[in-house]
Amino acid sequence: MKKRVAVLGATGIVGQRFIELLADHPWFDLEFLMASERTAGKIYGESVTWILEKPIPRKAYEMELLPINIDLLVRGKVDIVFSALPSDVAKNIEPQLAERGIFVVSNASPMRLEPDIPLLNPEVNADHIEILEEQRRKRGWSGAVMKVPNCTTAIATLSLKPLVDEFGVGKIVIATMQALSGAGLTGVPSMFILDNIIPYIEGEEGKVESETLKILGEFKGNSIIPNSSIAVTSSCHRVMVLEGHMEAIFVELKSKASADEVVKVMEAFKGNKIKGMGLPTAPEKPIIVRREVNRPQPRLDRLEGRGMSVVVGRVREDRVLNGVKYVVLGHNTIRGAAGTGVLMAELLVKKGYV
Amino acid sequence: MKKRVAVLGATGIVGQRFIELLADHPWFDLEFLMASERTAGKIYGESVTWILEKPIPRKAYEMELLPINIDLLVRGKVDIVFSALPSDVAKNIEPQLAERGIFVVSNASPMRLEPDIPLLNPEVNADHIEILEEQRRKRGWSGAVMKVPNCTTAIATLSLKPLVDEFGVGKIVIATMQALSGAGLTGVPSMFILDNIIPYIEGEEGKVESETLKILGEFKGNSIIPNSSIAVTSSCHRVMVLEGHMEAIFVELKSKASADEVVKVMEAFKGNKIKGMGLPTAPEKPIIVRREVNRPQPRLDRLEGRGMSVVVGRVREDRVLNGVKYVVLGHNTIRGAAGTGVLMAELLVKKGYV
Amino acid sequence: MKKRVAVLGATGIVGQRFIELLADHPWFDLEFLMASERTAGKIYGESVTWILEKPIPRKAYEMELLPINIDLLVRGKVDIVFSALPSDVAKNIEPQLAERGIFVVSNASPMRLEPDIPLLNPEVNADHIEILEEQRRKRGWSGAVMKVPNCTTAIATLSLKPLVDEFGVGKIVIATMQALSGAGLTGVPSMFILDNIIPYIEGEEGKVESETLKILGEFKGNSIIPNSSIAVTSSCHRVMVLEGHMEAIFVELKSKASADEVVKVMEAFKGNKIKGMGLPTAPEKPIIVRREVNRPQPRLDRLEGRGMSVVVGRVREDRVLNGVKYVVLGHNTIRGAAGTGVLMAELLVKKGYV
Amino acid sequence: MKKRVAVLGATGIVGQRFIELLADHPWFDLEFLMASERTAGKIYGESVTWILEKPIPRKAYEMELLPINIDLLVRGKVDIVFSALPSDVAKNIEPQLAERGIFVVSNASPMRLEPDIPLLNPEVNADHIEILEEQRRKRGWSGAVMKVPNCTTAIATLSLKPLVDEFGVGKIVIATMQALSGAGLTGVPSMFILDNIIPYIEGEEGKVESETLKILGEFKGNSIIPNSSIAVTSSCHRVMVLEGHMEAIFVELKSKASADEVVKVMEAFKGNKIKGMGLPTAPEKPIIVRREVNRPQPRLDRLEGRGMSVVVGRVREDRVLNGVKYVVLGHNTIRGAAGTGVLMAELLVKKGYV
Repeated sequence: MKKRVAVLGATGIVGQRFIELLADHPWFDLEFLMASERTAGKIYGESVTWILEKPIPRKAYEMELLPINIDLLVRGKVDIVFSALPSDVAKNIEPQLAERGIFVVSNASPMRLEPDIPLLNPEVNADHIEILEEQRRKRGWSGAVMKVPNCTTAIATLSLKPLVDEFGVGKIVIATMQALSGAGLTGVPSMFILDNIIPYIEGEEGKVESETLKILGEFKGNSIIPNSSIAVTSSCHRVMVLEGHMEAIFVELKSKASADEVVKVMEAFKGNKIKGMGLPTAPEKPIIVRREVNRPQPRLDRLEGRGMSVVVGRVREDRVLNGVKYVVLGHNTIRGAAGTGVLMAELLVKKGYV
Repeated sequence: MKKRVAVLGATGIVGQRFIELLADHPWFDLEFLMASERTAGKIYGESVTWILEKPIPRKAYEMELLPINIDLLVRGKVDIVFSALPSDVAKNIEPQLAERGIFVVSNASPMRLEPDIPLLNPEVNADHIEILEEQRRKRGWSGAVMKVPNCTTAIATLSLKPLVDEFGVGKIVIATMQALSGAGLTGVPSMFILDNIIPYIEGEEGKVESETLKILGEFKGNSIIPNSSIAVTSSCHRVMVLEGHMEAIFVELKSKASADEVVKVMEAFKGNKIKGMGLPTAPEKPIIVRREVNRPQPRLDRLEGRGMSVVVGRVREDRVLNGVKYVVLGHNTIRGAAGTGVLMAELLVKKGYV
Repeated sequence: MKKRVAVLGATGIVGQRFIELLADHPWFDLEFLMASERTAGKIYGESVTWILEKPIPRKAYEMELLPINIDLLVRGKVDIVFSALPSDVAKNIEPQLAERGIFVVSNASPMRLEPDIPLLNPEVNADHIEILEEQRRKRGWSGAVMKVPNCTTAIATLSLKPLVDEFGVGKIVIATMQALSGAGLTGVPSMFILDNIIPYIEGEEGKVESETLKILGEFKGNSIIPNSSIAVTSSCHRVMVLEGHMEAIFVELKSKASADEVVKVMEAFKGNKIKGMGLPTAPEKPIIVRREVNRPQPRLDRLEGRGMSVVVGRVREDRVLNGVKYVVLGHNTIRGAAGTGVLMAELLVKKGYV
Repeated sequence: MKKRVAVLGATGIVGQRFIELLADHPWFDLEFLMASERTAGKIYGESVTWILEKPIPRKAYEMELLPINIDLLVRGKVDIVFSALPSDVAKNIEPQLAERGIFVVSNASPMRLEPDIPLLNPEVNADHIEILEEQRRKRGWSGAVMKVPNCTTAIATLSLKPLVDEFGVGKIVIATMQALSGAGLTGVPSMFILDNIIPYIEGEEGKVESETLKILGEFKGNSIIPNSSIAVTSSCHRVMVLEGHMEAIFVELKSKASADEVVKVMEAFKGNKIKGMGLPTAPEKPIIVRREVNRPQPRLDRLEGRGMSVVVGRVREDRVLNGVKYVVLGHNTIRGAAGTGVLMAELLVKKGYV
């Protein structure tokens, strides 16, 4: 029996990725597409400015694009809502949906750091999902809210997890080169970025620095304890790339490790937290390590593992931080947004929540 | 009396910048343009693929492009040669020129780390020029060799110098987003970089990590002592920008300083080492600090101070490294190459070497 | 005695170019900067997203950005208003200004084809200015309205004028590759144009096809008669270039001419209609012809004649249209907008209208 | 029984596309990969700078990259050689291969216009293949040589064919915006094309103007008669797009047709010459017509029909040429090169030549 799902904020880039991933999903039936009043009312294919490399799935093309309507979602017996809503709308709508019995998998940033909200990067911390019990009890919700991490953080933490487990991690310095799609369909005017770099992304550094600790933290009893041995500093920059965030990461390791040992540990990482569960969107290899000196590259590597793998390269020892440095690339609207959202929803199903 | 100068490697990007800066220079007369046999023999304007934003200076257009000829330079009583030669050619030619009495200001990397070779970023370490006496004595040269630092390093050290002087600096982490021009006219094929990033620049990280220590070191007696309190780690990446290297820098400060104090110190920095000397190519402000959250940007800020200023932005405290982090932008073929070379030559003249 | 001028629509790209050209103009004093209510109220330098290659002129930076206010302009004794207003605002405001005694030099498209409105590309049809007498008489205006042509048309007609005069012209086919700046500061999102072409620019083809006939027409008695021997068809496309429209033009010539003869006639063209008037913004050579097979190129040639020259290349015979084909490049926001506007205003002054 | 095939010039872009299309082809077995001496000797995956969006097919990765060796191809019983050799090498090698009994499907330009060499765009002129009999007889070859048209021409002629058949065509004006991949892996340095257009592609216009007549000509008796009612003029330009040539085409029609009628005829076109043959690489719809005003766009539409369809848009009447104008987009290294080559080879097999 397939679960009934809806996408809210269906016309933006993340909304488009959700639809691409859900249109033929083996476990989910896409029942409703909703967006702001302004765009709603026509069929989806004629309302959206579709920009993905593959055409709109035929089924989605013909669906009606509705204004956001909580009652309709409840009456329509929707099990899971995927939210790609803007923050200010999400803040208001998502708790109402949870109260009315719907499970919300949200890409919006509000609530991400609240202690009873799971912030999931499944291969890294699928077990944090257990906080849902506490969340539902405390808030009196028959549904629930789960959050997809910030894109940059999702990519970074996936690459860091095996190092945390194997060697212990202290200071982390992250400098990013982020894709245009992270700012949404019309977020970066071409006149501002051609032959240019914008060395600022609003709110991004704070998210990277705080969400990393929560994701790499531990679920204990009925709370998630942020990882207190780690400290992250970051500098985030926008460059002229369509999709794929590149991050230069410098990590202090608690126990000494050579570059080769780090590579080995990364390649051996299978995402234990969800391994063997058979989640359809889980990549075979969460981390792919390239040996060539000039990889990963966004255009060539961003679609590895159908966009769900991160690709690491240039692993080398770092004598200044006493650890290693490397670059990691991830697809920001798949691994860093919609793909991780769908993977979380699969986890919900597998665990029997819906 | 103007000094007689020549440019070797005149057709590449750095050669073009040298010519642009020298064509109407108040202290120098451009006498010879030389390049490899392959391109030589025609007039310069018809041999070069000129790519600068302003047209070729009329005078240079009509000059003959000659093959490299040491005898001719000596007979032609050339005082200073500006070398933009490839490393393998430079290694061989430059010492011969110095032996024959010519002062070589070189952008090529060989010899940069040799202890008797000044590696000058004039506002930072103009006093290192005094090692020339030792160099000439020891090597028996009637001329001399001086080196322009690696482009990324020149930009970084200019921004770091006031912090070193005022607060003391320990660990430094540098992640770069470097312009295409750094790879030369044809170095980066468009098919490799459009919608892409190349996370590797051959030899660059080693240069940044070692040259920084020498430039920020001290001239003592007859040797230059690298700064031993500093340790640099870097990750260097190529992005799709024509000119202007952007660097995200994280610095440990020995004495505590707020972001405001750091800004103040940077803005107060006047490049004491050459201040008041009246060198024509010296920028009024070596460091410009922008307050807007989204500056500096390569396209908008790279020509500040006619390309000789570096532009700093986003200065903020860094609790992980116990210091500050900021971004700095510099024009890689002016501040990071030809402009600094011309400034060094002006210093040579002012100090009476030629 | 300098004339008092104002810029309306001061924050857009064309507004920025007007300000750059007027800040130090020998004949004009920039008295007011006005824009929509939304942006007004602060000083200009803090309100505008300045994107030109040179910084904001110091004087303009400090000026107050006012909401549009006709009374203030009248009370302020403004002689000439430069309008870079959006069409819907311009349509309403510009006639009111003219009625109140102000001369309006407008870049907005409404009214361009009305028979008593001069549509000026000064080197081509400066004499059309004489229609102003009829315009003012008929409409009862103490001021007047003059229009800058569509950018693509301004560039094309400048290159076509000597061919019309010397050989006679029939059919014209124009295919364009237009710069991003033509769509305004935020008109083309980067996600839509990176690694892409948009083969459509709203309204552009109609403007090119109709305005060309008016500009190349004749002023007779009290009306401007469109050139009836010419017929234009066009296809307009947006490409990823910051500034500079490139046009491939195929022209039927009434009397046979070789490519060499066409080059000669273009190079001999001095813009007779304004020649010798000493207008400060007039380029020395309105048309520059390049002989290299691969020129003009936007990045290298768009600033020829301070952006006021057009650059022609690849002139070759065309046996299909019985004439010639060539490419022409012009700076779309200078030659195709603000620069031509300022040149028109200089003509107004020279002719004694203001 | 699969046919044995080889790719010559295997490391360039067209070579890469051939390999991508042939690695799992139902009718062909890829037996040899050959390239110049310089790159040969290692396994393919380690020799090539692979730049396609999908990874190297596993099988090809492990194949040895050999120097070009005619004897080996003969001894290896190769049926068909796909040649992506540079012109000067192709000119020499290809006739030798044909003499030794091999069928050569070549993307190189030499011999394209020779009267006994089929220049095939299969949906348009598959019947021209019958000239092979004459070619083999006259030249005494046991093999044969067939040519893939110039990329721009292949795309244009596919869109023009239904107009020629239905309305008759006279004058054609073509202005192109061509992708970087057309110049090969390293053909266009990024410093030359970023924020720029290069309005020249060596030899391209001549090819478009002459090859079009041959492709749209008729096979009669034992010669191919170029279409004498058509006359083509073109202007070719390089823009910053990775793949996909866009062409603005203006066509004189012999019998009057509305834009709607032209759209209808294009959509009805099924490529009769190969219809129903079951060739695996033939697209379902050779011509796709888009109704949106701003399509086709290279990034969004180039992979239609797995890169084998051309996408037409903006069909509108043209009163200047008495016909229509439209834009057409095709994938230059698939439809315009390797894909059409493989389709030709399938035709060879279907027709029983090999």
